[in-house]
Amino acid sequence: MLVVMKAQATPEEIQAVCDQITRLGFRAHPLPGAQRTAIGITGNKGQVEAGSLEELAGVAEVIAVSKPYKLVSRDVKADNTVITFPGTNATIGGRDLAVIAGPCSVESREQVFAAAEQISKAGAQFFRGGAFKPRTSPYAFQGLGEEALKLLAEVRERYGLRIVTEAIDTEALELVDHYADVIQIGARNMQNYSLLKAAGRKRKPVLLKRGLAATLEEFLMAAEYVMSEGNYQVVLCERGVRTFADHTRNTLDLSIVPAVQRLSHLPIIVDPSHGTGKRNKVLPLARAAVAVGADGLMVEVHHSPDKALSDGAQSIYPEQFSKLMDECSQIANVVGRNIPRGIEVTETAAVR
Amino acid sequence: MLVVMKAQATPEEIQAVCDQITRLGFRAHPLPGAQRTAIGITGNKGQVEAGSLEELAGVAEVIAVSKPYKLVSRDVKADNTVITFPGTNATIGGRDLAVIAGPCSVESREQVFAAAEQISKAGAQFFRGGAFKPRTSPYAFQGLGEEALKLLAEVRERYGLRIVTEAIDTEALELVDHYADVIQIGARNMQNYSLLKAAGRKRKPVLLKRGLAATLEEFLMAAEYVMSEGNYQVVLCERGVRTFADHTRNTLDLSIVPAVQRLSHLPIIVDPSHGTGKRNKVLPLARAAVAVGADGLMVEVHHSPDKALSDGAQSIYPEQFSKLMDECSQIANVVGRNIPRGIEVTETAAVR
Amino acid sequence: MLVVMKAQATPEEIQAVCDQITRLGFRAHPLPGAQRTAIGITGNKGQVEAGSLEELAGVAEVIAVSKPYKLVSRDVKADNTVITFPGTNATIGGRDLAVIAGPCSVESREQVFAAAEQISKAGAQFFRGGAFKPRTSPYAFQGLGEEALKLLAEVRERYGLRIVTEAIDTEALELVDHYADVIQIGARNMQNYSLLKAAGRKRKPVLLKRGLAATLEEFLMAAEYVMSEGNYQVVLCERGVRTFADHTRNTLDLSIVPAVQRLSHLPIIVDPSHGTGKRNKVLPLARAAVAVGADGLMVEVHHSPDKALSDGAQSIYPEQFSKLMDECSQIANVVGRNIPRGIEVTETAAVR
Amino acid sequence: MLVVMKAQATPEEIQAVCDQITRLGFRAHPLPGAQRTAIGITGNKGQVEAGSLEELAGVAEVIAVSKPYKLVSRDVKADNTVITFPGTNATIGGRDLAVIAGPCSVESREQVFAAAEQISKAGAQFFRGGAFKPRTSPYAFQGLGEEALKLLAEVRERYGLRIVTEAIDTEALELVDHYADVIQIGARNMQNYSLLKAAGRKRKPVLLKRGLAATLEEFLMAAEYVMSEGNYQVVLCERGVRTFADHTRNTLDLSIVPAVQRLSHLPIIVDPSHGTGKRNKVLPLARAAVAVGADGLMVEVHHSPDKALSDGAQSIYPEQFSKLMDECSQIANVVGRNIPRGIEVTETAAVR
Repeated sequence: MLVVMKAQATPEEIQAVCDQITRLGFRAHPLPGAQRTAIGITGNKGQVEAGSLEELAGVAEVIAVSKPYKLVSRDVKADNTVITFPGTNATIGGRDLAVIAGPCSVESREQVFAAAEQISKAGAQFFRGGAFKPRTSPYAFQGLGEEALKLLAEVRERYGLRIVTEAIDTEALELVDHYADVIQIGARNMQNYSLLKAAGRKRKPVLLKRGLAATLEEFLMAAEYVMSEGNYQVVLCERGVRTFADHTRNTLDLSIVPAVQRLSHLPIIVDPSHGTGKRNKVLPLARAAVAVGADGLMVEVHHSPDKALSDGAQSIYPEQFSKLMDECSQIANVVGRNIPRGIEVTETAAVR
Repeated sequence: MLVVMKAQATPEEIQAVCDQITRLGFRAHPLPGAQRTAIGITGNKGQVEAGSLEELAGVAEVIAVSKPYKLVSRDVKADNTVITFPGTNATIGGRDLAVIAGPCSVESREQVFAAAEQISKAGAQFFRGGAFKPRTSPYAFQGLGEEALKLLAEVRERYGLRIVTEAIDTEALELVDHYADVIQIGARNMQNYSLLKAAGRKRKPVLLKRGLAATLEEFLMAAEYVMSEGNYQVVLCERGVRTFADHTRNTLDLSIVPAVQRLSHLPIIVDPSHGTGKRNKVLPLARAAVAVGADGLMVEVHHSPDKALSDGAQSIYPEQFSKLMDECSQIANVVGRNIPRGIEVTETAAVR
Repeated sequence: MLVVMKAQATPEEIQAVCDQITRLGFRAHPLPGAQRTAIGITGNKGQVEAGSLEELAGVAEVIAVSKPYKLVSRDVKADNTVITFPGTNATIGGRDLAVIAGPCSVESREQVFAAAEQISKAGAQFFRGGAFKPRTSPYAFQGLGEEALKLLAEVRERYGLRIVTEAIDTEALELVDHYADVIQIGARNMQNYSLLKAAGRKRKPVLLKRGLAATLEEFLMAAEYVMSEGNYQVVLCERGVRTFADHTRNTLDLSIVPAVQRLSHLPIIVDPSHGTGKRNKVLPLARAAVAVGADGLMVEVHHSPDKALSDGAQSIYPEQFSKLMDECSQIANVVGRNIPRGIEVTETAAVR
Repeated sequence: MLVVMKAQATPEEIQAVCDQITRLGFRAHPLPGAQRTAIGITGNKGQVEAGSLEELAGVAEVIAVSKPYKLVSRDVKADNTVITFPGTNATIGGRDLAVIAGPCSVESREQVFAAAEQISKAGAQFFRGGAFKPRTSPYAFQGLGEEALKLLAEVRERYGLRIVTEAIDTEALELVDHYADVIQIGARNMQNYSLLKAAGRKRKPVLLKRGLAATLEEFLMAAEYVMSEGNYQVVLCERGVRTFADHTRNTLDLSIVPAVQRLSHLPIIVDPSHGTGKRNKVLPLARAAVAVGADGLMVEVHHSPDKALSDGAQSIYPEQFSKLMDECSQIANVVGRNIPRGIEVTETAAVR
């Protein structure tokens, strides 16, 4: 159910509706739009009775949402969700594309700063680097953990880059929430509902990667898990799905970008590095992602890919990344978007 | 690396090798076989130096294991792993097939006991029922939690049936470990490595379901995660994979049964309920699973499927389950196996 | 549309209805059943007008068929189609299972006769062997053509085995129709509609293999193409589909067997050789196919697989085939079926 | 095997090498390059003996080609294949992108000319329209056949547009070869080897669509079938593959574009209409295809899609096509390519 408030509804009226929803045993999710506020209603105690809400002051109408995803849906929020990073010019979901770049894993101070230096120079606003690595083998490098997170925080301090890094479980989530700017949930955890709900109780934006065999509906429902707990800042990320095709590690499904944008107000970005698994495919697929209308890119860049402790074969060189920024900028302009060059930090320490 | 002990090696010699492995900074996994004990060595500090182990008393040879899965591999343990349930005649992985039956979710005392009564009568030894349900929608029924676990424990008390139920996160794991006999890890969590490792630190057997898009190697590596933490009682379960085919909910991949048995000593069972998602396909595919050589079956049975809170469409009626037991028994005999009828509990309360 | 005749309708009344259908510009397909005859109506000139048919003598009712497949559907013919081979005891689709065995390709007289000798001894009734091979590479062995067909005909002469062999195009179809007993259409040609229609104009049974990525509906529609031309003797064959799974060459989808049997009256058999691509998987999956209820098996047997010019890795040895026959016979009995041992030829030369 | 001729080799020397190859029982395929001519050798009589060729006049070296595809490979021809259409400025495979547009099927003179008028105005150089339609159902509209081909020829006469249309069997091939400029082989026929070989004996360019479940290697091998018969003008076309994803009819696999370009000298274009099956996805995916580096586009345009006899849901409106041309032109420029606007016909009737 969804309560659409009148354009002139006051904050008090909105609050009164939320209170009544809570009294009925449900959860209220006020979602402000350009014209007016809608209030999503969730809970699993059956249908809410519309009558008791329709008569409240400021209510325009109460409508049923038939789709399985509610808060994620454009029916509930017509305008695109734009995530801002206070104290900076960085955004995700607006006219500007978000470019997130960095090594697969944080391996050492030298490696991280070498990468950050070049990524910053090329104009990206976000830095990625794994502190906790979900690896197929228990005997493979599992990440440096909190030590890595501290290095990432130093990168932010030095270059202004906003930090995106993965939380692989609820313990890691606490640390990532403490040190980073965006909490990444990996493809393997897309249906780890406990982790999704825990991330939904945080207030940092969540970057949710599509599972290897996730349908569009399952992908949106995973975002719904996060939103149902009150965190409305979710960024979706296509990173390839598993098919019979063997010329790339995964099959990058770019058609999901317009499909998501049709059904949901959430931003969706594309990861051509995991999406192809091959260095020589990253640049062309990054261009294609921007052309298809993605709200951003996530790219693995390593200053010395052959020595990378993980995913070296799909990491591009810093100079390839510069080229990627240039070509993608031009394509962004063709589709009415823009790739901002460099992050501007207007307030600093106070932010965190 | 793998240390193969001489047939006549003493427990002290075995212990001394384990101690030396630990001193070198690795983990030792003694795996007794019919003829002799092998000691698996795991850790991610690079290769162990064979020299320091080869000279120890009782050591026959030190060999490198080239496969990515170590403890899971038949190279490390040639004999089939047979899991026993002390105080009962139930086993998984031996000549007897393990049949696990019950409703998708535990919904109420009446429902659980009605199902258990009939399942017990039909001769199954294991009872399943979800206490924690991983649902695609945050608004769908999520299971009764600990209340359900208590009901399951009562079922064991009354019918002797051993309890199999899913742990969806580390919190649920503690409870499942407390109340149940087998800890199930669901398909969606097959690569939730934190959960796998936590289950590896328990001493109850772990039933690991294949992920929807998991390759054979990834499936075995997930089991390796559990084993690497010291829990060697892992049962694999094929439950269908995701393909383009739309006449069943998933595509049941029975060929993985002989494939697993060739590479690993671990038992593998089949779940034709999730594997097909359709009541009328469960019986034929159950027969096929036994014919292909599976070590057991996991089947959803509901006394009133049309009223089930989850997965009603794939649950069979109790009378269909009796027929399944009969037909599968006969097929088991053709392939040199046996479906025991009924559990015998020789010791009771003391067990737990 | 479907005209259901009264149980006591005379042949003349049936013919009169067919004539009227033809006059209306459609095609009539009389399909005799156990109780009464139904007459399928096909054509692409829109809907037939029921009124002009309902009033004809002997007509019970005229009903619309809403499924896209008409003649293939159980709605049109409730009883299973049983294909007979006049002059022999061989059938496909009845209580007896059809076992089709032989080498992938016909390579030489010695090879064919060595295989036929052992296959005949093991009790199969049908012999397979490729004369025309659809190979991925234009430079690979393409089959011996008519020379191979002549050898196959000699095998029938000597051992009584009925011959199944593939027609890869309309030219080959003429030859196969001349020499063989069953015309095979391969997986790659499942949607080669011109070939399907040409096969539909022949009067020999057609064995239609499922395409690598064919849905159930597409598979049935391919059979509909054959039937729409008047050849109602179609045998479907599951031979594995293409998925991400890499432990077998294809993923054998046994669930399609009960799915086909529910919707269609046509027999369906299983090919575990192409379905797995691995010798050590053929026997277990053959057992599973019988257990799931398949109407027969198609198996590659080569007296010396390592020297085979094609598909050696998936061909089993003659002694493995004997074992397969024994185990599958026992499983057939469990599911109320029978594997006849050996073909009995009561009339010979005159047949052709 | 591949004979690389010296840069200064004379036509007579090249011919002498070809003759010697023929004498040895193989087929010679002279493939002129920018620097020098290479001569591919094919046949299935085993390896050619290099010695007898190496000593001939003009031969630089004889090298073995280890890949299964030979003539298709960049090893054999380093420069991109550029297909020209004599008497026009149209090309496929050069700097200019080829845009092929038109209705799914030719339905009537009015429909075809209405579409052609607008497509011509928007600047495309190629016109598509099915005369023979491979339909899943035998009762669906199968195309107007030769009548359609004549209308297409009239379109060429009037607008200059070069005609691309599908040949579904060898009979249709003769007609298509007679009336059209490019012979299309559809996805369902990608492994119809008889048809591929027949097309290989024609001299018109062949547009080969990727099969629904074709790997990269199988796709290239299908092209090799055409080339092995002497027709070296092959254009590959990605049109989506079949996966579990259900938000589009097929999953468009754009990563195959750079993958093909790396391994082969043949041009590859993209069909976003079949690749997505949804009108609202055609424009974004067309942009993405150009951005990824495709050599052209194939797009379904219908002046009144809701009335289309086939594939209406994926056909775009003429005004959407104009927009597509504009946006794709700009993206083409970013990647160093160009979309020519309009076809220039310098010679006319005489050409055919």
